[in-house]
Amino acid sequence: MQLPSSLLQNAVAEFAKLPGIGKKTALRLVLHLLKQDVTEAKQFGEAIARMREEIKFCQRCFNVSDGDICSICSNSLRNQRMICVVETIRDVIAIETTQQLNGTYHVLGGIISPLDGIGPDQLNIETLVARIQKEETEELLFALNPNIQGDTTIYYIQKKIAHLPCRITTIARGIAFGGELEYADEMTLARSIANRLPVQQYVK
Amino acid sequence: MQLPSSLLQNAVAEFAKLPGIGKKTALRLVLHLLKQDVTEAKQFGEAIARMREEIKFCQRCFNVSDGDICSICSNSLRNQRMICVVETIRDVIAIETTQQLNGTYHVLGGIISPLDGIGPDQLNIETLVARIQKEETEELLFALNPNIQGDTTIYYIQKKIAHLPCRITTIARGIAFGGELEYADEMTLARSIANRLPVQQYVK
Repeated sequence: MQLPSSLLQNAVAEFAKLPGIGKKTALRLVLHLLKQDVTEAKQFGEAIARMREEIKFCQRCFNVSDGDICSICSNSLRNQRMICVVETIRDVIAIETTQQLNGTYHVLGGIISPLDGIGPDQLNIETLVARIQKEETEELLFALNPNIQGDTTIYYIQKKIAHLPCRITTIARGIAFGGELEYADEMTLARSIANRLPVQQYVK
Repeated sequence: MQLPSSLLQNAVAEFAKLPGIGKKTALRLVLHLLKQDVTEAKQFGEAIARMREEIKFCQRCFNVSDGDICSICSNSLRNQRMICVVETIRDVIAIETTQQLNGTYHVLGGIISPLDGIGPDQLNIETLVARIQKEETEELLFALNPNIQGDTTIYYIQKKIAHLPCRITTIARGIAFGGELEYADEMTLARSIANRLPVQQYVK
């Protein structure tokens, strides 16, 4: 696409680098910003640049944060002796939205996946083990995606902390609410039968 | 959505202001930028801010431009005595992509639409009339969207320049290439019959 201005061309090229945004959508967004006030468009650009430049990662749980320690880790109303282990920041946001977890998090920054060349050393696992030891954590809840990589990661960490008096749990896996048995894959159905729950526990 | 950082929250809010981008998509885009290098994300923000701040509009045709006169108006290989009248910059880009027009443009910046409170005074019509007079334009080609507002605008401008020796044309309207007669609306079909062309002219 030949654009009449190199400034416009640049802006479109930058937008088109984003995932799921093609050249036509990029042009539509840039022309929208062009119609706004100068301050409005500047504010947009600055919010993005500032976010990337000034954002910090919590030194305790590796969640994004405005300061050295994130708002969840510094919240005394939350159970600081419970750690929920997640893969990414996006998982933290998803779980926080449910308002069901009153503990803290630990963001691994990925998942053990030998095929992709990601080993335990590239993840925040050492810091997690040290943290459990130092903070005398009472419960470690794994909220990882239910697949081979997730299970490998759970297995690895579990071995590492087997000597510590910490309860290890994982989020329930099974047929999703609203799902249909008929269309569930074999593995999910098999596991949901193997891990069946007493009804009292289910409906509590 | 409760986000763990106000910087993140700001960036997501800015993205979510864009047309067709909801909160979830905004978050996905921001987290993508967060994974990039600081320079990469800064470059994105700056390209947008700079684009809006430094972009100019051609003083002759009101197209976007890097300088006072755009690259089309200053191109001596193009027929400077032909003006194609369009509604927006996006139309210029669409027509330029076809590489079928060797003349110049005039961006009206909108279309006469009394229902939306847009009259001729809010558009670049006076400047167009002055330009035709001064530049001794030979052909004025209307490339406006084929609807009532477009036709009203053509009618208005045509009356204004009736005394000038300038040929006035409009882009052909009819059944779109690849379209099916059966599904064409009545108006389009009726007009395409009324404005039928000799086959020689059509296939030339």
